[in-house]
Amino acid sequence: MEEKIYSEGIISRLSQYLKFIVHLKETGKRTVTSREISERTGINSAEVRRDLIYFEIKGKRGVGFSIDKLIISFNNILGYDRTVHIALVGIGNLGKAILNYKMLDSFGFKIENVFDNDPAKIGKTISERAIRDMKEIEHIIKEKNIEIAIIAVPPAKAQMVADILVRADIKVIMNYTSVPIKVPKKVKIQTTDPIEKLLHTLYYLSHTGYAEYK
Amino acid sequence: MEEKIYSEGIISRLSQYLKFIVHLKETGKRTVTSREISERTGINSAEVRRDLIYFEIKGKRGVGFSIDKLIISFNNILGYDRTVHIALVGIGNLGKAILNYKMLDSFGFKIENVFDNDPAKIGKTISERAIRDMKEIEHIIKEKNIEIAIIAVPPAKAQMVADILVRADIKVIMNYTSVPIKVPKKVKIQTTDPIEKLLHTLYYLSHTGYAEYK
Repeated sequence: MEEKIYSEGIISRLSQYLKFIVHLKETGKRTVTSREISERTGINSAEVRRDLIYFEIKGKRGVGFSIDKLIISFNNILGYDRTVHIALVGIGNLGKAILNYKMLDSFGFKIENVFDNDPAKIGKTISERAIRDMKEIEHIIKEKNIEIAIIAVPPAKAQMVADILVRADIKVIMNYTSVPIKVPKKVKIQTTDPIEKLLHTLYYLSHTGYAEYK
Repeated sequence: MEEKIYSEGIISRLSQYLKFIVHLKETGKRTVTSREISERTGINSAEVRRDLIYFEIKGKRGVGFSIDKLIISFNNILGYDRTVHIALVGIGNLGKAILNYKMLDSFGFKIENVFDNDPAKIGKTISERAIRDMKEIEHIIKEKNIEIAIIAVPPAKAQMVADILVRADIKVIMNYTSVPIKVPKKVKIQTTDPIEKLLHTLYYLSHTGYAEYK
């Protein structure tokens, strides 16, 4: 069968749907309507329906969609069928908050290797993981074939850490710092940053709606 | 003059451009090319150029765009010309990480009112702010006319906090917890969540590109 490749937009929306319905399943629910998906993800209901129709996902009138079937469909489309190992760099407040994030486990994301350069932290244990010396990171990423790293260090050190990760042949960097980092094209950067969302929000506060130019 | 209203997509992109060039300005740079904007924001260079052309923002061939002029243009388009007061609920690792986020100040976002329900924290000071009792939040939000609140509490308490914020007539909630929360339509929810980005990333790792369906 030919493998289909989808746009960033649809992957982003499917990821949001999947996250919401996995949460719903954990609360004990078994069905969900497209309207509920729209309300909780904030994605326009016409767009939710368009996506479900496009992927030929069928529900029952008046009942909605089976959560189990939706999870299987979305996982198939997105290709999520494996455990993903993630390295975390920086065990400050942000790093600790990320380690506390229980939902990661439900999706197969395992943060088992954590790093810092503070001698007071190296060798200590956090959430059952030994904090390793940054000096070991290149070696460990290569040896364990880790594909994703999260940078949660102070802004001034972000680029330096990124450079080390690039040398270690990391494939994806999640940049949680407030500064943009520069990497070669072969490395994918994902930025998670409150500023962008706040700027967006501010626009919403100053205006009453959104319109044509997209 | 007629006020134009733009789509969520363009507002999101302009917010990313603005954030990057404000950062560049802080590093001392005075000009930027559309290619640099594309490289650092990860937004397709054709799309960056299309946006700049749409808003009639002009650069100089071989030099690029004046950073000061870009900032003025983007601020005008987006309507960012004021200080925005934000309430932060939850002074755990995540709340502390948010308070440490220095870039917020550069954009006029002021987190002056912080709340927790832990008696051991209430009354203490964090980053020069007094931690207030959650019981005061409804009163303070109304009195100070605070429009945005960030929820950074444990997942099990997220909905309860959201309900209190809704009663206080908050306009926007930034949900930093791992669970979706439900609010009336009049309240705008923004979710900042590593799961969605990771799911997105995972798709990228399993596939070589993106394509047509958007």
